[in-house]
This record gives sequence, C-alpha cells and structure tokens, in this order.
Amino acid sequence: MAIRKLKVGIVGLGGVGTVHLEAYRGSPAVEVAAAAEIDAAKLDAAASRHGFKPYADFHRMLAGESLDLVVVATPVATHEEVTIAAARAGRHVLCEKPLAVEAAAAKRMIAACTQAGVTLFYGATYRQLPALRRARDLIAEGAIGDVLLMREQEVGGTGPDGRQIMGFAHYPKGGPGGSGFGLVDHGIHLIDAFGWLAGSTVATVFGRGNISGADPASEYLLMNVRNGALGHLLYEDSTFPTALPGEGLFSWGAGWSIDGYLPPGAWQATPGSIHVHGTKGALRIFHYAHALFLTDKDGTRQIELEGRAAPGHFTAQVESCARSILDGAPVEVPGEAGLAAREVVEAAYRSVEMKQVVTVDGG
Amino acid sequence: MAIRKLKVGIVGLGGVGTVHLEAYRGSPAVEVAAAAEIDAAKLDAAASRHGFKPYADFHRMLAGESLDLVVVATPVATHEEVTIAAARAGRHVLCEKPLAVEAAAAKRMIAACTQAGVTLFYGATYRQLPALRRARDLIAEGAIGDVLLMREQEVGGTGPDGRQIMGFAHYPKGGPGGSGFGLVDHGIHLIDAFGWLAGSTVATVFGRGNISGADPASEYLLMNVRNGALGHLLYEDSTFPTALPGEGLFSWGAGWSIDGYLPPGAWQATPGSIHVHGTKGALRIFHYAHALFLTDKDGTRQIELEGRAAPGHFTAQVESCARSILDGAPVEVPGEAGLAAREVVEAAYRSVEMKQVVTVDGG
Amino acid sequence: MAIRKLKVGIVGLGGVGTVHLEAYRGSPAVEVAAAAEIDAAKLDAAASRHGFKPYADFHRMLAGESLDLVVVATPVATHEEVTIAAARAGRHVLCEKPLAVEAAAAKRMIAACTQAGVTLFYGATYRQLPALRRARDLIAEGAIGDVLLMREQEVGGTGPDGRQIMGFAHYPKGGPGGSGFGLVDHGIHLIDAFGWLAGSTVATVFGRGNISGADPASEYLLMNVRNGALGHLLYEDSTFPTALPGEGLFSWGAGWSIDGYLPPGAWQATPGSIHVHGTKGALRIFHYAHALFLTDKDGTRQIELEGRAAPGHFTAQVESCARSILDGAPVEVPGEAGLAAREVVEAAYRSVEMKQVVTVDGG
Amino acid sequence: MAIRKLKVGIVGLGGVGTVHLEAYRGSPAVEVAAAAEIDAAKLDAAASRHGFKPYADFHRMLAGESLDLVVVATPVATHEEVTIAAARAGRHVLCEKPLAVEAAAAKRMIAACTQAGVTLFYGATYRQLPALRRARDLIAEGAIGDVLLMREQEVGGTGPDGRQIMGFAHYPKGGPGGSGFGLVDHGIHLIDAFGWLAGSTVATVFGRGNISGADPASEYLLMNVRNGALGHLLYEDSTFPTALPGEGLFSWGAGWSIDGYLPPGAWQATPGSIHVHGTKGALRIFHYAHALFLTDKDGTRQIELEGRAAPGHFTAQVESCARSILDGAPVEVPGEAGLAAREVVEAAYRSVEMKQVVTVDGG
Repeated sequence: MAIRKLKVGIVGLGGVGTVHLEAYRGSPAVEVAAAAEIDAAKLDAAASRHGFKPYADFHRMLAGESLDLVVVATPVATHEEVTIAAARAGRHVLCEKPLAVEAAAAKRMIAACTQAGVTLFYGATYRQLPALRRARDLIAEGAIGDVLLMREQEVGGTGPDGRQIMGFAHYPKGGPGGSGFGLVDHGIHLIDAFGWLAGSTVATVFGRGNISGADPASEYLLMNVRNGALGHLLYEDSTFPTALPGEGLFSWGAGWSIDGYLPPGAWQATPGSIHVHGTKGALRIFHYAHALFLTDKDGTRQIELEGRAAPGHFTAQVESCARSILDGAPVEVPGEAGLAAREVVEAAYRSVEMKQVVTVDGG
Repeated sequence: MAIRKLKVGIVGLGGVGTVHLEAYRGSPAVEVAAAAEIDAAKLDAAASRHGFKPYADFHRMLAGESLDLVVVATPVATHEEVTIAAARAGRHVLCEKPLAVEAAAAKRMIAACTQAGVTLFYGATYRQLPALRRARDLIAEGAIGDVLLMREQEVGGTGPDGRQIMGFAHYPKGGPGGSGFGLVDHGIHLIDAFGWLAGSTVATVFGRGNISGADPASEYLLMNVRNGALGHLLYEDSTFPTALPGEGLFSWGAGWSIDGYLPPGAWQATPGSIHVHGTKGALRIFHYAHALFLTDKDGTRQIELEGRAAPGHFTAQVESCARSILDGAPVEVPGEAGLAAREVVEAAYRSVEMKQVVTVDGG
Repeated sequence: MAIRKLKVGIVGLGGVGTVHLEAYRGSPAVEVAAAAEIDAAKLDAAASRHGFKPYADFHRMLAGESLDLVVVATPVATHEEVTIAAARAGRHVLCEKPLAVEAAAAKRMIAACTQAGVTLFYGATYRQLPALRRARDLIAEGAIGDVLLMREQEVGGTGPDGRQIMGFAHYPKGGPGGSGFGLVDHGIHLIDAFGWLAGSTVATVFGRGNISGADPASEYLLMNVRNGALGHLLYEDSTFPTALPGEGLFSWGAGWSIDGYLPPGAWQATPGSIHVHGTKGALRIFHYAHALFLTDKDGTRQIELEGRAAPGHFTAQVESCARSILDGAPVEVPGEAGLAAREVVEAAYRSVEMKQVVTVDGG
Repeated sequence: MAIRKLKVGIVGLGGVGTVHLEAYRGSPAVEVAAAAEIDAAKLDAAASRHGFKPYADFHRMLAGESLDLVVVATPVATHEEVTIAAARAGRHVLCEKPLAVEAAAAKRMIAACTQAGVTLFYGATYRQLPALRRARDLIAEGAIGDVLLMREQEVGGTGPDGRQIMGFAHYPKGGPGGSGFGLVDHGIHLIDAFGWLAGSTVATVFGRGNISGADPASEYLLMNVRNGALGHLLYEDSTFPTALPGEGLFSWGAGWSIDGYLPPGAWQATPGSIHVHGTKGALRIFHYAHALFLTDKDGTRQIELEGRAAPGHFTAQVESCARSILDGAPVEVPGEAGLAAREVVEAAYRSVEMKQVVTVDGG
C-alpha cells in the first residue's frame, strides 16, 4: 500500500467525468486535486461539492498542478489532444474509452506517452466489474472448459424516436447529424472483454458498424478469437425488447442511463448480460446488475461476488492505476488494449464496405 | 370442404415419418392408405396400429395404390429419388425439409413434378405453427411497424459428448462420420420462416455452415432480407445453456426430441423462441411451446392463439395439401420455397469458403 | 337447447349490474328485455347502448314485462325486498351474492320463492369460472386424493388510505362509516366454493369478521368441512403485498377492480389464487387469471381450460339459469347455497364475540 | 473482545448437535473442548474430526472439564435433566429449542440456573439469521409502519408417506408412534420470532397443535400480539406444494433437511419465507435462503444483508453467548424466552381441546 494518495486531475466533467469524480470520492487511494471543464456552471457546482481546484482550461491545469495522473473524460474527438498535452507535461494518463476516433490517433497517443516516459492507462472499466472478474477467474480455472462462444446482445428501446444519440465526435467520418448505440461506444467494451475473458486476442472479424454516425442500423460483430472461440455482438436500440417480465433480475449495481444509477436491490426488467459458453459449462454474466450464474452438468447456480458493484468499478480502476504509479505494480490495462479494441472496430467498418471477413490490424 | 378424404401414402417411417402418421390420425381430411418402410419390424408395428397397407418397397406402393398424395419422409439423400418416382407415377408429393441435399437436386425434383403435372408441396411445418401464423398476421397488420431484425439462437446442450448427431446423408459433401444441430437441419426452418414473416426474400447472406458434416462448430447466418430486415441465426449444441430457472415457460406444445413430445402444460426450462423486432413493437414467438408475446409502447402482453399446438402443425399441413388437391385452393408452400431455403444454406456454405457476403442464387 | 331466448330483467345497474348486462350481450340464450335503475343518467346510457326497456321503478318493470328471470343486482340491503316482489310477480330470480344482510332475510326470500312456485338462483359466480370448474372435476376424479387443506389469502393493497370501501348496507349491524374487503363481500365466494370443491359442507368455523363495517381489521376464517378438510381464508387490504416481480402471471381473465377488466394476456403482478392441497397432489387455481396448475409426484404442470375467462362466468351463469327454466335442467346453485354461505359468515361473527369455535346453523 | 476463547462442551451429537459443532469450527470466539454422546461410533468420528475430548456420559464430562458453556443438543425430553445437571455443576447453559417438553419443566430449568448463579441461554437461532435481524431493524426504524400481520406457511411435501417424523420425545403426552412437522418443532421458532419482530409478546392464541404426536394433521396458530399485530402460522407437510417454478429463488443459505445444507447459490424451488405486513410497507423474509425484500409505495426492492447465511446463525449465537459470559454483554435470548414460546404452544394445545381462544400463561 502506498504511503500517500494519488494526486489526480480530471479533464471533462460531462456524464462520465462526473461518474469518475463521484466514484473516487470514497477511495483511500486517490485525491482529486483539480479538474478542468469548459462549462463554467458545471465546473463551479462540482468544485464546491468536491473541493478540487477548478480550471476552465486544461492546459492551465497541467501547468499549475503537480498531478500524478490525468483522467481524460472529454468527448472522444479531443482524447488525442488532451492525452498528448498531459504526457508532454509529464503526467500519467488514464484515458476513457474509446481511446481515440481512429487507430492512427491511438498510436500517436501511445507514442507520445512512451516518449514522455509516462504510462497511458486505457479505461476498460468492464475489466473492473466484479461479475466479469469472477467469470474470468472461473474460466482460467477451467470451470467451463474451452471457451466456444461469447455473446452479448442489446436489442430493445422504445422505437426509432427513442434512439440514444451520440455526437458525431465519436466517428472517424462524422458529419452533421448523430447516431445510436452500437459498436463504437458500447461494443468496444465487449471487444476488449471477450479477448480478456478468453485469454487471447481477436484475429479476424465480420461485422456491420457505423463509420460516420449517419444511417443508424442494427450493428453486429463476429469475432474469431485466436484460440478458436467465437465472439458475437448484436446491437439495436431503435426497436422494443422481447424479454418477459419474469426474466428480470434484482440488480445490485448501476443501470447506466442519462438519469443515473439505480438504487441497490432494484428490479431491472431487462438487465444487460454477457453469455460465455464452453465445453464444460456456461456463464451468464450480469455485469452491471452484479450477478453471475454458472450452468454445468450439476445444474445452474449463482456465484458469490466480492467487490463493489457499479459504479465501484471506476473506483477499482483508479486504485489499480495508483498501485502501478505509486507501488510499481504491473499496468493492468495499457493504452495498447485501447488501440487493439479500436482496430477491431475499424476492421468492422472495413468489413461493411468490403462485405467480407477482415483481418484485424496489428491483431 | 372436400366430399372425400385425401388418400395418402407415406414413404419412410423413421422419426419424422411417424410424426406424420400420428398427426394424421385424427384428421377428418386425410386417410393414410399405405406406407413404405424398409425396416420390417417398424413397418409391421405401424401397420397394425394404424391399419394402412404396408409395403417394403415404395416403388410397389406407387404401383399398387391409387394415392392422392405421397409424403416423402425418408433420409434427405433419397428425397430426389422418391419424389421423382412419385411424380412419374402421377402422384402429388409432400416432401420433408430439407427438400434435397443440394439445390441442383431440388431443381430436378421441381422440374419432374412440373413435367408430370403434379404439385410438389414443401414441408415447411413452421408456417403451420399457430404462434408463427399469428405473428405473421400481426406483422402484416402493422402491429410492430417495419421489421428491423429477426433472430433465433439455440445455444445449449450438455457439452460436446451430448451433441445431436445427424447422418452425413444431410450434407452435399458428406463422408464418414456425423455432425451436429445447425443450419441444414434446424436453421432451414427459420430461413424459410424469416422471409415469410417479413413478407420478402433473402438477398444476401454471410454465415458459417457445415458443408460436409465433419468438424462441427457453432453455425450462424446473417441474412439481408430484400425489404431491409436483418435475419440472424446462431446455433451451438455442444455447450451448456445460460438460461436462469425463472426464464422457462409452461409449454403447451411438443418438445422435439428423440424421446418424443412433452405432455401439454409441461414446464420447459429452455423453450426455443424466435424474436422479431420492429419499429413499433417486438414479438417473442415460442413456436413449439405455443405462446406468443407482444411488447410495444403499451407494455408486454400475451397473445391468444388458435389452432393446435405441435404436433398439430403436421395435421394442419396435410389438411392444407388436401384443400389444394381436392378443392383447388392455392398451394401454400410450393417446392420452390424449399429450393429457395436450400439456396440460402448453400450461399452460407460458399460464404464460409469465401469469407465474404454472398448473393443468394435465384433469390 | 331451448327454442327461445330467456327473457331477462335486471334490477340495479351499478358495478355488478353492468357486468351482468355486458356479459349477457353476446349470449345466444338470453335477451335483456328490461332493466330498472334509480339513477336516470345510468339508466338512459345503458338503455341506449343495450336496447332494453328502461324503468326507474322496478315494481313497474315487474308489472309491465313478462320476464322469465329477474336478476337482482342492487345493494345487498335491498335484495330481500326486490327478490320477494319478483317472486310474488311470478318471476324466477337470480340474486347476487351475498344473498342477504342476514340469514333470517335469506330464509324469508327462499320461503317466498317456494310459495310463489319460482326458482331462486344464487349468484355463486365462482362456480362458473373455468379454472374452478376444472379443479372441481380433477378433485372428483381423485387427481389430488383426499382434500386436506384449501386456502385463499388476499393480503396487500397500498396501506390504510387505499382500503377498498363498501357501504354499511353489506352488514347486519351497519352504522355510520364504511369498511374494507373481507369475508362478507369477497370471502363469501370462497365459503361457497370450498364446500363445492371438497364435495361437502362446512360444519364449524373459527374466524374474525366484521359485523358492523366499523373498525376494519384483518379478517380470517378457519372452516372445518364435514369430510375432514380444513378451509382457510385470510384477508387484509390495508397493507402492501409481499409478492416478488417474477411471481406474477399473464392473465387471460378479468382483474376485478373499480377500473374494470384487464385486457386479455396482461401481466398481473399479484394475481389472486386458491390453493387446494390433497394427499396425492395440489392445485393452484388462478380463478380470474384463468390458469390452473397441478403438482403431484410427477411435478408441476399447467392444466388446459375450456370455456370463457372472466367475465364469461356471468354469461355461463345466466345460461345455466336458462337451461333450468326453459329446458328443465337441474338448478346448479339454488338459494339455499346462498343461505348456507351467509350462515357461515354469521358463525364467523359469533366466533369473534364468543372467541370460540362455532357450529354453523343448519350446516 | 474477550482475551480468551469460550470453552464449550456439547451434549448430544445428533443432527443439530453436529450443526453446532460444525458451525463453531471457524469461530475465533469459541473452542469445543469436550462433547458427550451415547452413540460411540458418532462420538469417535466427531472427536477425531474436531479434536475435542469425547465422553460417553455427560455427567463425567461435567465433572471432568472446566467448561464455560454447556450446549444442550439432546432429544427434548432430556433437556431438563441435562440442563439442571450442568447448572448444578456451575456451568452456563445454551439449550436448544424447544426448551422443554412442557412449561413446568422449563420453569424448573430456569429456577435451577438462577439458583446456581449461571445463565440459561435459549437457542432461538432464528434471531441470529441475517434476514430476520435486518427485518427487525427495518421494522424498528419504521420502514413498514405499524405491524398489522405476520405469517408463515409451510404447506407441501410429497404426500402422507413422505411426512417428516419426529419422535414422541417432543410431546408432553407422547406415546408409541411418531408425528410430523408442526408448531412444536418448527413453529416454535416463529412464535418467538413474531414477538421479537413486533417488539411485543403474545397475549392470546387460537390454534390447532398436536399434544401427543399421534394423528398428525394440519397445524395452525393465530396469535394476538399485545401491540395489536396478528400472527398467523400454518403447517402441513403431508401434501404437495402449490408453488410455480418461477417462484423459486437462488438461495445463499442452508436448506434444512436430513441431507444437510444446500451449496451456496443453489436454486430452491420452494424456499421458506416469512411475511410481515405493516401500514407503510411489507417485508418478505427468506430466512434460510438469506434474502430480504421490501415493498412499499416506491415498489419492491431487495435489501442487502450482512453476516453469514445459515448455518452461520449457530456461530453468531454462540458468539453472542461468549460476549455475555466473558465480556458481560446483556443476554440476548434468556431461558425465559424459551418458556414463553413453550407457553404459547401449550395454549395452542388447550385451544384445540377447548375450541376457543386461550390466554397465554404468564404472557
């Protein structure tokens, strides 16, 4: 355990920046010393609640504070600029997902951090969710044999008018308009998580993804993992769900939405889940609802989880950074993991255009 | 209503042939006059139970009986031979799915029936399941708006040793060995049903299917339907399921298995279901369990079904043939539908080899 | 089948009178020729919708119409007056439950009908619910062996402020104020049904019931049925339920409430049910939700139901009256059944005062 | 925290004695120094597994060991003899439920302990179950307002042949034969727990209980708690359950059975639960399954539990004794609570004979 707290500065206090701020609040390992945000009202409100030093301009924050870690929580189109500035200021960086709008930018970010001798941590928060961590351990222990198939599907919503809109800042070819939930924002978590769960990396993909944010449609991705497992994602948020009322779950974790987190123990009618199927068993991972079930020849049972439910995974993530920076522990999720996930999304984009299986760059 | 019963002869009294025989028993529209089966013990047992005239050789049956309809329920590799012989004998034919081992054979069967002036009916029994028929009607009435996505996934089993084995007679390149549940045997139902539900046909596909029956692996199929809908199938029967106990359903229909049908009202832990998602609502179709649910802006509700649950769809199918043959009603599912489904599977096979999206022949 | 429709007049077009009116609408066996109601607006609206002859005064209706059957759907305190007047006018009577405010009045009603040579039918609608009828048949066939225990519990609501209020006209000692859901209004159905299900009658009771409608509190009734079965009722509507979300059911029948009936196939979070336990099996009867489940040594399964879900039991009831009146069929539920149920409630009242087991009068 | 471990001797190593032994194993607060058991094989096996000093005769154990606490886990008919002998030997006593075969014996046990200056602890293990403790705290905080109704029902089994048999040693008038599950063995937990949950005591009862262990039948108990709440118990184990498959629960605690405890996270089809209904909300307590749900105007939610699931409540119980004996903490459950529960059961016995409400002695 470190003898001092990690001194953190956050850039960007929008939705996810605020989650970082709130999640760090109770941690014995970190102290939010400063934050930068261009919206003055947001900045003032957060500063008076959390007691950090507010900056309208992140450059001034970098110049004015001796920070251990800069957390980049701005819109994705600005990740490169902020990360490289922080690296040049000699600060370690924890950058939110997706790492960058395109793989080339992600590579420049990694190079800048390497050159500056600082660590670039990639914000793969799913790896910090207790249900996923326990699933990975069970898989590593052989509880489900060889992994054959991993899948996540989020098909639901309230029709086209209820589609969740993300700015074009997420897309390499973004233009006027906006788009929905899909690979680039949500699926990128699973792209990283599937490789991590299976203990391998993605070799080739076939998919349908949205390169420009226009013309939203169902997105999917088929991933051939190097060790033989098949990964499968399917997203559509402009329709209605097909779950029955009894298929819900009491959720102990957060439901991620504009309205914020669910209270603990709330019933969730359509909790997101990840399915991992192996030769000896199968896992149903309710990552946010904080529940895990194993089915094998002995039947189905719930697996006990340790650690904090969402949003505790943001706390766990920054504490992992603190252990690396202050105690020299190995880096759990380096920037390269963010680049790899980005390359898979770009392979999906190419797959759409080429209508064929595409080999992942650098994969 | 016809003034006489349809006179039927069945060729093949294996699993599915027996289902036909049993399902026809109570029908006022048909009479099983004869059946042919090479296994003498099976033939005798069925003949004494059902009172038809038994034949060891189907050629003799065709020569000796003035049948209205020959039902082809032999292994798929022999469908062509039996169908063409029946057509030449001047009999209408109802041929089980898949229509043939390859599209070329299916075309020869259609041509032979056309030439002989008889009708080739394709055994797309899913179209006779009440839950699917009601779903199609709701879609046609606009209850879920435009169809965006249709999906079926059967991922479960009891590990590799429990894999369901089909003979190589199912595969165009079959050799020694055997293989599992997948597109060619089960998925071929959905390939037909998705086009029928969406009121369109499949234009292009990407998939993974097993052309030879060797090396069983997860099979999937992405179908781009002409009217813009996406169809998605995923099959893996050599793993374990991820369903929770509360996700089951009381089933009013058959569970298809070697052990036969479930009693009505039995609890099924993992009932198969088809999901259809549209712009205004979504349908969850429990095709064998005989239940249908609609979710839209007003919530989720169960939809009442008329007609007989499985195996009543076999009865409904032959009664539909009787109406066409005796009363001149339009043919519900002609041989061409079987060819079309076969062509989609073959496109999936080519897609595996070419690692790309493939245009369906004649589609 | 009768050669003509039964000519019916309804007295009282409040909540339950309207249900009778609506339920009779589609029946081929009855015709509502007239109705009497003191609220002119209600009367006019119903008359223009249903096309019957309206009367402000039921005496005039009795004098002016040659009816086969008078349906008494007025507040319970007036059942005696209306029934006796109808009998004296020579009309058969179907009287809503509870038959009267006190047993003595019920006896006078029975006597008046006997003297006038007309039949008094008791409105035990639960006996017409398909789930209950099927349960009774299964019990009679020995499906659950000897009945040991029958129970119904309705414990729920939204706290004391949400208590369902009934007028004091329901109670023999009613005074100013009002009271809640309990034995006298709801339980009286089960008192009748338990004897009918067990094929016996109630010998002694211990209970807590509300004789005056003041001081509402949890009501219960323990019934010792002559053939050895134990009946158990428990009602409390001024608290909250303890059901979990997954314990609900898709309901095919009506939910009885001020807001009227549920649409068919609606999910009901806390559907009322009756439990019948025997030596060889147990039944769970969802009487309004139109579902029935049997558990025995072979497990739990759903039992198929014929007939119409609620409010179809009102139609079935009047059609049963029509068969008795026009075709001479035996009377299914005579007035004596209503008297017997009333005597059980009064025994419960005496039990409260005497704090002891009470023998049911005439039981 | 005490500076030394509590030195414990157990008398009786049958079913519940073994549970005590196993549950104490991991506790930092107690040490099982000795145990007495007349079955030599059981004694030897347990001694070699747990390392205590074995005694065939408990009198020798009392004479030979300087124990802090004697745990009485013998058949109930011998509780008096063992407890009084232990008290006279100057040992504190933790006596299993029911405290004695009759209230008079319980009083003699209390008197003997008082005279010897030792504490008699009553084994009301339900008070140590986390779900019940949390429920009691919520009630005390006003979360459900005033308690109106508490109920537990265990109605199920596999018919008369599957009835759970207890020796006649449980009954004050026991003779040859045996009997089933009911008030005296299981219900006595709830009799204690209901008063404790409601913060009051039982004033009067009406019930049906088995005084002799002959003629097993459904047992029930209606309890009028001094502060106005109604307690209601109903037990029948010689029939079948009426629960539906989806009404089960993943259980984190023990299922109490001859076959022992369930593994954690196992699905339980019919988990026992206690319902507590108040004016502002209601609690569903799955005491062994280790789950708690609150329903109020804001809906239903699961409540987080601390502490160890069953059989951890046996550990918690002995640790509570240790705190009282070594640290002077107040006695949580004195022998008087066991006497009070016994007096309620005896009032139930009298109620059967007198067919009336009975005032609880000393209540």
